[in-house]
Order: sequence, then structure tokens, then C-alpha cells
Amino acid sequence: MTNKVITITRQYGSGGREIGQTLAEQLGIEFYDNKLLDVAAGDSGIHKSHFEENDEKRSNSFLYLLSTTYGQGGVPFDDALFFAQLNAIQKIASEHSCVIIGRCADYALRDFSGVVNIFISAPLEIRIKRAIEVYGIGEKHAADYVKRIDKQRTSYYNYYTDKRWGTPQNYHLCLDSSALGIDGSVVLLRQFLDDFYNR
Amino acid sequence: MTNKVITITRQYGSGGREIGQTLAEQLGIEFYDNKLLDVAAGDSGIHKSHFEENDEKRSNSFLYLLSTTYGQGGVPFDDALFFAQLNAIQKIASEHSCVIIGRCADYALRDFSGVVNIFISAPLEIRIKRAIEVYGIGEKHAADYVKRIDKQRTSYYNYYTDKRWGTPQNYHLCLDSSALGIDGSVVLLRQFLDDFYNR
Repeated sequence: MTNKVITITRQYGSGGREIGQTLAEQLGIEFYDNKLLDVAAGDSGIHKSHFEENDEKRSNSFLYLLSTTYGQGGVPFDDALFFAQLNAIQKIASEHSCVIIGRCADYALRDFSGVVNIFISAPLEIRIKRAIEVYGIGEKHAADYVKRIDKQRTSYYNYYTDKRWGTPQNYHLCLDSSALGIDGSVVLLRQFLDDFYNR
Repeated sequence: MTNKVITITRQYGSGGREIGQTLAEQLGIEFYDNKLLDVAAGDSGIHKSHFEENDEKRSNSFLYLLSTTYGQGGVPFDDALFFAQLNAIQKIASEHSCVIIGRCADYALRDFSGVVNIFISAPLEIRIKRAIEVYGIGEKHAADYVKRIDKQRTSYYNYYTDKRWGTPQNYHLCLDSSALGIDGSVVLLRQFLDDFYNR
């Protein structure tokens, strides 16, 4: 039986992660966001060995990269990290049904069957509001921050894949999460997934 | 009561028009595609007077434009036609619920409430197949033709609006019509519309 793998690409502050996590809970499948993928990449041995070969400075750089990634929501342009995550994503998708957030997962799984690719967006002002209220981003620079994170994600995706981030052709469905709200979006996506996997 | 107005922007050969027409039938509302909008624009008096002021050559040019538009699915860059259609779209949306295909309707109605903007796409090979089988496009040049029509639509939209054609941020929902098929897409869109208008 083919695994059900849902990749979610999202604009920063659109609630894509929350939608994905709720979907995973309701469907009873695993959920992988950036942090969990980095752990999986580390566990894969590919990333570990890459860094074990290097000196302390490089290890510290890796820790620095991890901390800056998590601290700012951005992504480092690190080939080793990218390929470690790609391999981790492919391994995970082969093993069990899951929801995966970001990290070019739609690209990593482009040759896999049973994959549904979803894009979540929302109007900028709503995303800025969410960044401030939910993610604790300072109000003064929130607008710039939101745009910058999306720029980083776009650059990362466009650099490592042969596609362009956020174009509808990459996804089975794109949804403005403000249209139905987070919960309403989950309801609609569940309907889509039911219909898709039961065709 | 606010009218329910659904705009459908679509890649050529994705079945967007058929989806829109079926939606309109099922919802019991009016349906407007390119031809009907041109008629409405003509009836509006704006377009007629524009052409009545001009010489026979211009009138023939208009007829030529109409025939080439319908014959090839492309769009002429004609300011008078654009604004006549924009006015027709705004008038229609003010008067009754409807489904409108293309013609920058999402842009024309950007300040209207109760409008749902949908984008329909499909993989290129599927659209080429539909162009050949449903629209009777010759097999030899079908691929080029499909791409060319989308280029024309993109250029038209980008020229006349302050947005970029086909970016998810313009739409409440984008759907790959091949994921669920035409009928399945209609079912999902009806679910979305029910949820949206009943929030």
C-alpha cells in the first residue's frame, strides 16, 4: 500500500505549520517540521559523518547554523544539510504516511507516488499580525521580517530545485488560510485528501 | 444581500471553463465566459460608441479582433475592450450572483465583497491532450499552442493589472484539475464555496 504523504509549503505566518500538524493528528499520521527533519538528517548518519570529519570550528558552525535557523526561521544554504534532509525526507516517506512541512519536500518526493503537495498562503497583513501575536516577532520590524523569511524560503527552494517556489503548478492545491480560517482550512484539506486518495 | 461572485482564472486546457459552467449550473447562478463578456461589453454602450466614432477600418479591425480572439483563444491588447469588459464585469457582479471566466475579473472586482477567486491549473501534458481531444487543436502544434495562449493571458493580465497572473496570492484557492478530475474539482469547489459563504 502506498503511503499517504502530504507536503506543505507555506508563506511565513500563514498558519501552514499549524494546519499541517492538525491534519497529521486528525489523520493519525506522523508530522515532520524543520526541527524534526534536522534531527532525522542528523540521525541518518550522513550529516553526522560529514561533520565528524571536520574540525571543531565546523561543528560550532553547524550549531550556529542550527541556532540561527531556529532563531530566525531562515534557512542556511548548506549543501550537506540540504542533501541530508532530502535523503531523510525520502526515507521517511518510504517508511510511513506523514505530513512534512517545507524543506523542498515536494521536490524531494517528485518521483514518489501517493504524495499530495499543498501550498498555504494568506494576505500579508494577516501574516504580519500572526507573526506578532503567535510567533512573538517585534511589531516594529514584523513586516520586513515576514517578507524576508519568505524571500529566504524562495531563494532556498529556487536554488536547490528546478522549480520556482510558490507557483501553483507545483501543488495539487493552494489555499489562502484566511478564507476559511485555520480550522476551516483543515476541514477542506481533509475533504480534498479523502477524495484524492479514494479516486 | 451580497452577491456570490466566483471568478475563475485558468491555464489553457485545464478545464477551468467547464468547471465554472458546471458550478454555475449547480449553484443556479449566471455564467459568463469570454464571448458573453464581449457581448455584455458591446451592450454596455461604451464599446459600441467607441467604435461608432471610428472608421470602417477600425470596425473591421474590431470584427477581426473578435474573430481572432475566438478563433485562437488569445486576447487582443485593446484598451477600449479591456475597460468595456471591466465595466461589464463590475455591472454584472453588482446585479447578480455569477461565475465569470478570465478577463481579469478578479482584478476588476478587487474592491467588491462576496467575491471568491479561483485558479485552475493542470499538468502540461494533460492540457495538451485536452486541447487536442476537446478543443480540436492540431496535434503537431498543440504543445506550442497551449503555451502560447497562457503566455498571452499572462501578458494581458500583467499589462492591465498591478498583479502577476497565476500567483497563489491572487486567489482564495488554486486547484490542479487533474488531481480530482473535472467532476471531483466541482465537488471540492462547492464545498469550499459553501464553507466560505457560510462563515
